[in-house]
Amino acid sequence: MHLARGEKNWIIPDGYIPPTSAGSLESHESVCVLNVSSEEALLNFTIYFEDREPIEDILVVVPPRRTKHIRTSSLAKEGTSIPVGVPYAIEVRSDIPIFVQYSRLDATQAENALMSVVAYPVK
Amino acid sequence: MHLARGEKNWIIPDGYIPPTSAGSLESHESVCVLNVSSEEALLNFTIYFEDREPIEDILVVVPPRRTKHIRTSSLAKEGTSIPVGVPYAIEVRSDIPIFVQYSRLDATQAENALMSVVAYPVK
Amino acid sequence: MHLARGEKNWIIPDGYIPPTSAGSLESHESVCVLNVSSEEALLNFTIYFEDREPIEDILVVVPPRRTKHIRTSSLAKEGTSIPVGVPYAIEVRSDIPIFVQYSRLDATQAENALMSVVAYPVK
Amino acid sequence: MHLARGEKNWIIPDGYIPPTSAGSLESHESVCVLNVSSEEALLNFTIYFEDREPIEDILVVVPPRRTKHIRTSSLAKEGTSIPVGVPYAIEVRSDIPIFVQYSRLDATQAENALMSVVAYPVK
Repeated sequence: MHLARGEKNWIIPDGYIPPTSAGSLESHESVCVLNVSSEEALLNFTIYFEDREPIEDILVVVPPRRTKHIRTSSLAKEGTSIPVGVPYAIEVRSDIPIFVQYSRLDATQAENALMSVVAYPVK
Repeated sequence: MHLARGEKNWIIPDGYIPPTSAGSLESHESVCVLNVSSEEALLNFTIYFEDREPIEDILVVVPPRRTKHIRTSSLAKEGTSIPVGVPYAIEVRSDIPIFVQYSRLDATQAENALMSVVAYPVK
Repeated sequence: MHLARGEKNWIIPDGYIPPTSAGSLESHESVCVLNVSSEEALLNFTIYFEDREPIEDILVVVPPRRTKHIRTSSLAKEGTSIPVGVPYAIEVRSDIPIFVQYSRLDATQAENALMSVVAYPVK
Repeated sequence: MHLARGEKNWIIPDGYIPPTSAGSLESHESVCVLNVSSEEALLNFTIYFEDREPIEDILVVVPPRRTKHIRTSSLAKEGTSIPVGVPYAIEVRSDIPIFVQYSRLDATQAENALMSVVAYPVK
């Protein structure tokens, strides 16, 4: 029996899906979640924008003792997903403590660029 | 009614606006702010340099339940903005708690380079 | 006599060994550990996956007053190492407090890309 | 009169000075310090290696209300500086609280790569 560790609420202020890809890799972002516990984690995403209302209650499950690297382009609510080329921000809430890191691969040019941050934990 | 979360004071020691751009993207930095509350956030920026007095009291508003990705080249006080090609540092204070991340796209070469950090929260 | 400082448990949710290298450098990840104490640190790695059971109890020693930049491709348990091209996550536990940073060099394209985070400390 | 804020002890586990530069920019690392106080800050660096004794007591001054972006290649103790192409780690101590971020520009290839982390504060 493995207990949950981490935090239940994480923030990523700088979200952006690059609109184009020029090299052999595709531009994308990943929200990388680790659930070290023996229980399933139920995640609830809120997506904030600069000029419109947030998209709320996008649900994702992370199985026990597993990681899940979630493509932000896969996040959708009733057919509405995150538009490319638009600045946005991500909030992740979970019913049990988890860990969250955010990474972006930008392949706008033929050669790729990478950035990554551990998300900010709200305690 | 959404309560404010986060911190009121954030620090970014490594600011630098690359002076040139060679590819299809323009070199820039963004200070990415998230305000999850139902109230407007009033931000106050201080810009510190290596060899001159700080620029103080640059004001920016972030609307309720919105993110704002602020280009550092847009920050100005009485016509004085941040010079390119000069090392500097950023302090952000806000009247209500917010979240802050800093990212830089360097397009000095034809292919771009990316870096990002969650700003340091002063508690 | 130097006392141990830091934390005993660190998490890196976004692990990924790029499968290919095109330039003069080889794609790799490093888990960079600093042991500031006068004692040896005994590290215990757990590797979590998306679709299979974790690899547990990979042991690494970091000598007193030394850093060790550990290639993730060198981590193995009874002949089983981390597969390339697969999303995974890393947990590091240590018998004494240490510091941990994670960096990735992606040389999939001819020009390399870099990302780095300080691992998340579990307190 | 501005009071000091931040922390007095910061750690960067992943130090590395790329040995070569191919493009128009030179590979380098910067330890970026911000001193928001009205007093001078006296910094004391320790450099840790994988296979030899640390270099201790490298001193650097950061003036009041200033930032300083310190090239690691400039850090030296009695003529001994940090060798290029060698993994190492950095500890910064200061007599008053400061803020520290670490960034690396790798120009080994013609196109540059960037990484950055806020250093880990020891509290």
